[in-house]
Amino acid sequence: MTSPEAALARLPSRRADYPYFCPIQTRWADNDVYGHINNVVYYAWFDTVVNSFLIERSALDIHQGPCIGLVVETHCNYFSPLAFPQKIDAGLRVAHIGSSSVRYELGLFAADNAQSLCAAKGHFVHVYVDKISRRPVPLPERLQHVLESLL
Amino acid sequence: MTSPEAALARLPSRRADYPYFCPIQTRWADNDVYGHINNVVYYAWFDTVVNSFLIERSALDIHQGPCIGLVVETHCNYFSPLAFPQKIDAGLRVAHIGSSSVRYELGLFAADNAQSLCAAKGHFVHVYVDKISRRPVPLPERLQHVLESLL
Amino acid sequence: MTSPEAALARLPSRRADYPYFCPIQTRWADNDVYGHINNVVYYAWFDTVVNSFLIERSALDIHQGPCIGLVVETHCNYFSPLAFPQKIDAGLRVAHIGSSSVRYELGLFAADNAQSLCAAKGHFVHVYVDKISRRPVPLPERLQHVLESLL
Amino acid sequence: MTSPEAALARLPSRRADYPYFCPIQTRWADNDVYGHINNVVYYAWFDTVVNSFLIERSALDIHQGPCIGLVVETHCNYFSPLAFPQKIDAGLRVAHIGSSSVRYELGLFAADNAQSLCAAKGHFVHVYVDKISRRPVPLPERLQHVLESLL
Repeated sequence: MTSPEAALARLPSRRADYPYFCPIQTRWADNDVYGHINNVVYYAWFDTVVNSFLIERSALDIHQGPCIGLVVETHCNYFSPLAFPQKIDAGLRVAHIGSSSVRYELGLFAADNAQSLCAAKGHFVHVYVDKISRRPVPLPERLQHVLESLL
Repeated sequence: MTSPEAALARLPSRRADYPYFCPIQTRWADNDVYGHINNVVYYAWFDTVVNSFLIERSALDIHQGPCIGLVVETHCNYFSPLAFPQKIDAGLRVAHIGSSSVRYELGLFAADNAQSLCAAKGHFVHVYVDKISRRPVPLPERLQHVLESLL
Repeated sequence: MTSPEAALARLPSRRADYPYFCPIQTRWADNDVYGHINNVVYYAWFDTVVNSFLIERSALDIHQGPCIGLVVETHCNYFSPLAFPQKIDAGLRVAHIGSSSVRYELGLFAADNAQSLCAAKGHFVHVYVDKISRRPVPLPERLQHVLESLL
Repeated sequence: MTSPEAALARLPSRRADYPYFCPIQTRWADNDVYGHINNVVYYAWFDTVVNSFLIERSALDIHQGPCIGLVVETHCNYFSPLAFPQKIDAGLRVAHIGSSSVRYELGLFAADNAQSLCAAKGHFVHVYVDKISRRPVPLPERLQHVLESLL
């Protein structure tokens, strides 16, 4: 029922798989009733990693930019639990750049375990659209350049 | 690059695809800076729909149960924006029941649009584990019975 | 050390103290590691109740309005725990209308307990400012009219 | 209508008012539709600062401790906006230690502005209760010792 690619996609990744890292601070409210980070929170971290990277490299202007990245697909596999007050290292790579879209892949690692496999990994796909018309637009040149640095 | 199954998986679903519905109330903080529900929030709704269903049918006891459902995979495709203060109808079906696991599929519909395709759809996979040892356990009989009603 | 007013302010309120009610749906992620609604979440509900009320009465246009309500003070007292999947009734009243500001007071009640004292109560203060300059502006006439209905 | 103490309480504090500081990382989802940190999020930071401090000093064991701190009152005044991706410095002091309770006071400062007045300040009150009976208990000795270091 599952293709070899799909099976592979569900194996944990390694730190070496990601060219860019960003520390993530956990919060008290990230833990759910079972005492571990709620599955939802991982996606809040994904957004934070990608948007921090883009803002830092001047490839995103939230308030004034003419186009915005709409999220059209998100996915996460969870391999081992994380919990507040752990510190997390988030790895980021760009897996695919299309004419209007980009696919980011992320891995989350417990910060105190430098050699570990990831605790979770996921991806999300941005489609760039005009802020007003919400129609797809070509990726801005500056953005494309910045994304290529993470391929 | 994409299999026919994968392509199909990215088409919006219909209300008739789901045997169980649950209304979802949006919150002010669900909207992000672009004025629509943040992609992360959809997963908070998924958790709420599934756990509400299980508690309502007496198939989950958060505090006293001997086993818990760990989320091992989540996924969402976003087709059209939703925004506070819209009301949402969340559809739920069970796509697969394994010996220790269950795959839920969900569709989110704008409540004021009875005939619409979904605005987003997703899935998540629970693996049931012993609360203490965190080793997989067979699905409790009561849970299995309740899940079969949504196949 | 505490004035009589302050002491009074810390007593639970009753349903009859509020002219407007709004149901609140709890979410799985609202519960914290101790199994009850996290103290933070109550404020997400306050925002939701007030903004739902204002939008419903056409006294707030999030996207096009020339002025916005900035929150300058929030407060909450917690009397008894609430927990997902409980349903909540939120009561709202307007305690004070100034030239540019309004003070909302809210009470949260377990929905299955019609006669109860509130489980929590709080307030928050909005100051209306111009969307661009962020300087205080007089309350819009339509808003003032709507607020007076909750005095 | 307002006492001198209340008026004073609404003035911004300074960095020198706090003996303990903790950096706070903002998240994409912390910004609301108006482009600034939502008022609710400040309380998620307060919880994180206090619980991080207590865990770091071995004065809190979330999972095994016999007693827990219930939040009975929270409050915040907002003086100037903060926004993702800003970095925040959170200051913490202990304002009062009772037999079963403690009052924490917090100030939030934009990290890139070393001399600034706070952007927001708040407090919250914990009452320590037995995990099972939920009746107030004396503050554990270790906790009391740790709290005194922040008076």
